Amino acid sequence: MTVVEHDDRILVVDVGLRFPTPEMVGIDLVLPDFSYLRERARDIEAIVVTHGHEDHLGALPWVLRELGRHGDTPPVYGGPLTMAMARSKLEEHKLRDVELGDVAPGEAFDLGPFELEMIHMTHSIPDSSAVAIGTELGTVLITGDYKFDQTPVDGQPADISRLAELGREGVLLLCGDSTNVDRDGFSPSESVVGPHLQEVFARCEGRIVVTSFASNIHRVQQVVDAAHELGRKVALVGRSMRKNVGIGRSLDHIEVPEGMLVGPREIDDLPDERIVIISTGSQGEPLSALRRMAYRDHPQVQLRRGDTVVFSATPVPGNERAVNETIDRLYHIGCHVVTPRDAPVHASGHGYAEEVKLMLNLTQPRYVLPFHGDFKRLRLHAQLAEAVGIEPRDIFQGDNGMPLDIDARGARFGDREQAGMVFVDGVEIGDMADVALRDRRMLSADGIFIVVATIAEQDGRSVAEPEVIFRGVPFLDQAGELVEEIRSTVEESLRRAAGEEIREVDLLQQTLHDDLAQLVYDRLRRRPMVLPVVVEV
Amino acid sequence: MTVVEHDDRILVVDVGLRFPTPEMVGIDLVLPDFSYLRERARDIEAIVVTHGHEDHLGALPWVLRELGRHGDTPPVYGGPLTMAMARSKLEEHKLRDVELGDVAPGEAFDLGPFELEMIHMTHSIPDSSAVAIGTELGTVLITGDYKFDQTPVDGQPADISRLAELGREGVLLLCGDSTNVDRDGFSPSESVVGPHLQEVFARCEGRIVVTSFASNIHRVQQVVDAAHELGRKVALVGRSMRKNVGIGRSLDHIEVPEGMLVGPREIDDLPDERIVIISTGSQGEPLSALRRMAYRDHPQVQLRRGDTVVFSATPVPGNERAVNETIDRLYHIGCHVVTPRDAPVHASGHGYAEEVKLMLNLTQPRYVLPFHGDFKRLRLHAQLAEAVGIEPRDIFQGDNGMPLDIDARGARFGDREQAGMVFVDGVEIGDMADVALRDRRMLSADGIFIVVATIAEQDGRSVAEPEVIFRGVPFLDQAGELVEEIRSTVEESLRRAAGEEIREVDLLQQTLHDDLAQLVYDRLRRRPMVLPVVVEV
Repeated sequence: MTVVEHDDRILVVDVGLRFPTPEMVGIDLVLPDFSYLRERARDIEAIVVTHGHEDHLGALPWVLRELGRHGDTPPVYGGPLTMAMARSKLEEHKLRDVELGDVAPGEAFDLGPFELEMIHMTHSIPDSSAVAIGTELGTVLITGDYKFDQTPVDGQPADISRLAELGREGVLLLCGDSTNVDRDGFSPSESVVGPHLQEVFARCEGRIVVTSFASNIHRVQQVVDAAHELGRKVALVGRSMRKNVGIGRSLDHIEVPEGMLVGPREIDDLPDERIVIISTGSQGEPLSALRRMAYRDHPQVQLRRGDTVVFSATPVPGNERAVNETIDRLYHIGCHVVTPRDAPVHASGHGYAEEVKLMLNLTQPRYVLPFHGDFKRLRLHAQLAEAVGIEPRDIFQGDNGMPLDIDARGARFGDREQAGMVFVDGVEIGDMADVALRDRRMLSADGIFIVVATIAEQDGRSVAEPEVIFRGVPFLDQAGELVEEIRSTVEESLRRAAGEEIREVDLLQQTLHDDLAQLVYDRLRRRPMVLPVVVEV
Repeated sequence: MTVVEHDDRILVVDVGLRFPTPEMVGIDLVLPDFSYLRERARDIEAIVVTHGHEDHLGALPWVLRELGRHGDTPPVYGGPLTMAMARSKLEEHKLRDVELGDVAPGEAFDLGPFELEMIHMTHSIPDSSAVAIGTELGTVLITGDYKFDQTPVDGQPADISRLAELGREGVLLLCGDSTNVDRDGFSPSESVVGPHLQEVFARCEGRIVVTSFASNIHRVQQVVDAAHELGRKVALVGRSMRKNVGIGRSLDHIEVPEGMLVGPREIDDLPDERIVIISTGSQGEPLSALRRMAYRDHPQVQLRRGDTVVFSATPVPGNERAVNETIDRLYHIGCHVVTPRDAPVHASGHGYAEEVKLMLNLTQPRYVLPFHGDFKRLRLHAQLAEAVGIEPRDIFQGDNGMPLDIDARGARFGDREQAGMVFVDGVEIGDMADVALRDRRMLSADGIFIVVATIAEQDGRSVAEPEVIFRGVPFLDQAGELVEEIRSTVEESLRRAAGEEIREVDLLQQTLHDDLAQLVYDRLRRRPMVLPVVVEV
C-alpha cells in the first residue's frame, strides 16, 4: 500500500495483503496497518489499484469498510479486469455501494490536485499498470509489479514509449518493483512457456493436470492453446480458477474455442488422452483442488497411475514443504510430475535486474524509492540505480511507515508514521501482536493446566476438592499421580494463605500459580500454562 | 533405522531422528517408532552406525535407554569419529555404561550369525561407511549416505574396489541412499568448494563469517585452508561447531596450523582483514550463533557494515524462510552475503543419479530396496535400477514398517510391523498423534474459554457468580459484554438443568459446553476451546 499526498489530499495506490507465517498462530490474514488513513479518511481522493493480485488488492474490503466508518468510502480506480476482480471480492464481503471506476491505460484524468494516468505494463496477470501521478512538483511514477515482456501472450508489450516520454518530460520520483532485482539478466517471456507445455503434453498418454495461479490468465490461455493443438478438452477445477477464468473470458482476456470447456463432472466421460484439467493448488494449499486430488479426496477428480501433473508455478518461499508433500502424494498414486525444475513450464511475472535498469533509464527519475521487496532487495535495487548513474543522495531506501517528503528544495525522509501489520482473525481486524498471540504460542507449545479451588468466603478454607483439568499436555500416563500432587499442593497453599490471612482472590491465585507452575515443571520439565481459578462461596 | 534379522538375531543399522514440522506443535524431536525392537530387545546383537549425522545417530540415547529397560543395552559399533560423536551425545544424556566399539573399514568380524564389515565411503562428514552384513544367504549391503567423490578433501575416495569385489562375490540385497536420485549426472566433488571459498575470501575487505553444518569437518578444513592462504586466523563460534571440530581434531580429521585458532573473545583484538569466523546457523536456526549475530544479539561477535557472510550450505526444505530472514537481517547490518546461488561454495554430500547407477553396477545386487527418500525418490531410484538392467520383480519399493523377507526361494514383502514416528516432548517419548496434539492445534488456532460454575450439591442451583476466563482469544474489546452474556447463559443452562433434575456433573458440563460454544461462535465467528468446569459445594 502506497500513499501519495499533495496539498493535503491523498491518493492511495494498492492496498496490500499478506498471508500469515506459522508463528502467527491462528491468524487468517495480514493487512497493512492503515491507522494513518483512518484518521485522514476525509482527505482521501481515491484508491487506485495497479492489478488484480491478492497482495495488491486483497485488503480492499477491510480498508473500504473501515474508511467508510470514518468518512466517505473513497472511489476505487483501476483497469477493467482489476475492477471486475475487486467487484467480485467486494460482493463476497457484501460491500455493494462502492464506486469502482474502470480506467483505460493512457487516459489521463484529474483527481483533486492529482493528474492520474495508468500506463500499460506486462506481468503475470493481464491488465497490469504502472501509475503516473502528476502534481505541481512533477510526476510520481509507481511501477506496480511488472516485467518488460517483449512477446506477451496477448501481443501487448508494456508501453515503453509512454514511459520514455514521461522520462523526457521529467519524472520526480520512481517507486519501482524490487522482487527479482537479485536475478541477473532479463526474465524469460511468458510466451516461451506455451511451446514447452505443448512438448510436455505431447509426451503424455494419460490425463493431464496443470496447476498454476488462478489469476495467471495468460498461463491458462497457453494451457488451453496447447490442449487445443493436441485435441484435448479443458476442465477448470477449483473455485478461484473458475471465477478468474470466468471474469477473464467476459473481458476477452482469454479465448477458449467453442465447445472446448467441459465441466468437472464431465471429466470421467472423456478418454484419458482427451482432457487437460487446470487446477488450483500450485502452492500445496491445504484445501485446494490439487491437494485434495493428491490425497484422493476430490469429489470430481480421481487421479490414476499414468496421469501427469504439471506444476506451472514455483513455490512461494515458505510453501516448499507443502508443495513437496503434494508431489510425493502424486507419486504414490503413480502420477508423473513435471515441475519448472524438469522443463521451462513457468516464467516469473517480475522483471530481473536488466529490466529494473531499463525502467530507471527510460524514466530518468530525479529521485528513486525502491519498493516491493525485503531489505536485501531494496538494497540491491538501490545499487542498480547507482549503476545507471543516479546519485546515491537521490536514492532513498525506505521502510514501511517512513514518508519521503519532497518539495522544491529536495527530498528527505520525514518522521515515521504508524505502519506495519494488523491481523485478521475471523471477522475482526486488530493488533494482536501482544497478549493473545503470546498466549496461543504458549498454549500450542505445552498445553494448559486449569486448577479450580473453591474456598469459603468467611475463612478462606477449601470447601470442595480442587478440580484439575489439562489440555494439550501429553504423556500423562502418571496423570493420576500428578493430579493428586497438584491437589495437595493447592490444599497446602490455601492452608498457608489462610494462616497468613491472605484472602484476596488475585493474590491467592498468584500464590497458587507460582506453587503449581514449579510443581508441574519439576515433574514434566515443560512449562504449560497454569491457570488457577479461585471461587469464593 | 534399518533392522536386519537372521536366525532370530537382530542387527540394527543406524537409529534415525528427524526434526518436527510446524504442525507438530510444541514437539522437540521425532524418533522412529521402535516398538518392534522393544519387544525383541534381548535378540539384538548390536547397533551399527554408518556415520555421525543426527538423522542416523540422533535417536541413540532414547533407543539405548529404552532397550536397556527391556533387556541388555546392546553394544554400538561404528567408525572412530562416529563413535566419538556417539560418546559425547550419550554423555550429555548421562548414559555412561554403553559399549561403543570402533570399527576400522575393511575389517570383518562376527556378530552372532552376522559377519559385519564397514566399507569406507565419502559423504559430507568424515568416517562414513557402508555396511556389508554377511549371512548364510548372502551379503546385505546398506550404503548409508554416500557420494562417489573422486577427489575428497582427505584424499580417501570410497572403497570402490571392495564394493566391486562384494559384487563379484554376490550381493543378495542392496539398500541404497535415494536422497539425490532426482539430480542428473555426478555430484561435484567436495574439493571444488575450497578454491571458490578462497576466491570469495580474496575479495573481502572486512571480517568473514562462514556458516556450514558443524559436522561437515572437511568443509571446515577447507575454510581453514582458504583462511590460511590469505593470512587470516580462524575462530569457531557456536557450541556444536566447537564440539565437532574438537572431536575432528582429536582424531586427525582436521588439521589447523599452530596458532591459527583464536577464541571468540579474541576476535575483536584482530584487524578485520585477519579473521574468518566459522559459525553454526546455516539453517537459520532460532538460537544459533549466526542468527544471533544477524539480530545483533551475539555476546562475542558484533557484525558490521562491510563484513561478509558466506552460506556454505543450502537450506533443508522447510528452512528457506528462516534462512531468508537471517540473510535480510544481515543486509540490514550492511553485510555482504554470499550463498551457493552466487558462487559454488557448497557441494552436496549425496550422490546424484549417475552415482546411484554406479553403485548398482558395482555391487550387482540380486535384490534392490531403495531407501532414504520420500516416495518420489524411492520410485526414481527403482527406475534407475531398472535402467541398469535389474528386473522390476527384483526391485522392492518399500515403506517404513514393511519387512522384506528373503529366503532361498526369493524375496517378498511380509506383513507390516508397527513403525512410524514417535515424539519427544520434554524428556518423555510417546505417541501423541492423537488427543494432545489436536488440543494444542485447537488452542493455538483460537484460544480457550474456561467457565467455572459453582452449584449447591443439594439442589444444583448456582451458588457463586460463574467465573469466565479466556486466553489466546483476541480482540475482546467488548469482552465485558460477552462475559456478561456467558454468565447469563451459564445461569440459564443451570436453571434449566436443575428444572430437568440433571444433577450429574459430566452431563451438566456437556450441556454448558454446547450452549457456550454456540454463543461464542455466534459472537466471534471462531471456535475457541470451551471448557466448562462445574464445582459442587
